Amino acid sequence: MRIDVLTLFPAMFDGVFSSSILGKAREKGIVELNTVNFRDYANNKHNTVDDYPYGGGGGMVLKAEPIFAAVEALTEPLASKPRIVLMCPQGETFAQRKAEELSGEEHLIFICGHYEGYDERIREHLVTDELSIGDYVLTGGELPAMVVIDSVVRLLPGVLGNETSAVTDSFSTGLLEYPHYTRPEQFRDWKVPDILLSGHHANIEKWRKQQALRRTLEKRPDLLENYPLTKEEKRWLEELRREMEQPEL
Amino acid sequence: MRIDVLTLFPAMFDGVFSSSILGKAREKGIVELNTVNFRDYANNKHNTVDDYPYGGGGGMVLKAEPIFAAVEALTEPLASKPRIVLMCPQGETFAQRKAEELSGEEHLIFICGHYEGYDERIREHLVTDELSIGDYVLTGGELPAMVVIDSVVRLLPGVLGNETSAVTDSFSTGLLEYPHYTRPEQFRDWKVPDILLSGHHANIEKWRKQQALRRTLEKRPDLLENYPLTKEEKRWLEELRREMEQPEL
Repeated sequence: MRIDVLTLFPAMFDGVFSSSILGKAREKGIVELNTVNFRDYANNKHNTVDDYPYGGGGGMVLKAEPIFAAVEALTEPLASKPRIVLMCPQGETFAQRKAEELSGEEHLIFICGHYEGYDERIREHLVTDELSIGDYVLTGGELPAMVVIDSVVRLLPGVLGNETSAVTDSFSTGLLEYPHYTRPEQFRDWKVPDILLSGHHANIEKWRKQQALRRTLEKRPDLLENYPLTKEEKRWLEELRREMEQPEL
Repeated sequence: MRIDVLTLFPAMFDGVFSSSILGKAREKGIVELNTVNFRDYANNKHNTVDDYPYGGGGGMVLKAEPIFAAVEALTEPLASKPRIVLMCPQGETFAQRKAEELSGEEHLIFICGHYEGYDERIREHLVTDELSIGDYVLTGGELPAMVVIDSVVRLLPGVLGNETSAVTDSFSTGLLEYPHYTRPEQFRDWKVPDILLSGHHANIEKWRKQQALRRTLEKRPDLLENYPLTKEEKRWLEELRREMEQPEL
């Protein structure tokens, strides 16, 4: 996969693109990660990429020209058109399903604005996708682009060492993860639950499923709406709901 | 404000902590940003920070000891206890209100796991907050911590040059932003809407409010549920809904 990122702050990506999973995926040749400073495509003597908004008001607006020019310099030599993703608060809320969809592409271009808004013509006539990573205000699209890139690249074949890791994570299964414990068996006053030390695999599996359900019910009941419950899980969930409704004695 | 980040990949933070708003806030002395590699607190000869999960299964689990030790080394000299934020998929979904809440603190500690789960005793007995930035799977807590830190630091007094920028963004007002345009007036075939060139400020203001409502209704109707509509906005919204329901002729 090839990924190009248009940004005014390419140095922000250095540490993230060379560490951990992204660094390894790059070394293995699974992904090519490039940053493009779209200021290099400003066709005016001061290399201006933003300007005052028509109609007045505070803040600056990123001009259409440099961003169109930077994208077209990347796409013109290509036979097929890549997905062009604009990181912006107005975008579709990014979720795991979108990461899976994007991981099937051969080439992605991300456009990251900073401080300002984008000229509306970029949104209307250049991009294929608009993404937001959540309902909070950030300084620019750089961190959101890194988040999307990390979640997409880790799904590419050969990137994760342990193939099961990609499958059992929260949001992949649709439930929150069950509690994990590792050594020591007793840390300060706090012991590992007996069941996990029992060696009884079927019971451990059942406990974990019940814990995952309990945690999801307590913390993110909205996730259960789209989760296909088995008959057994339905029964457990009813028991959990009854238990949670009981007044404490 | 002081922010400490516990991570096994401190180099990931270099570019982000030294660029743009975070870099400037640091230079101005508004925020102190530190990374701590909690591997330095592993009390065993191989500097092991993770181990196999009790009860079997794939993946590794971050041990309680090094993380408790790293946090306590930071907090023991202090008179008051800071907020200790665990970045994890099971956490509360981060949103702008939480950024505002955290921006009132004097000291934040972020704990970033990587690949693995956390020993449950960290969650139960050490942290004050658990945060997730959205419903997607990432390689570690580093990018989520950067996202939360960026959204918190930009709210600190003196960080943003233009004080109005923090206020009019999407999610701060509760609606998505209206469309922005800047020069040129005509870019390729696409012109700036006439109203923005009219110089009639009251009409422009009204158009922008209506566009913000329209965009929110089309793309994120869920945001309208918590937005306090004025009488005028209620009328516009009804008109927009009627318009959108009309079959195209």
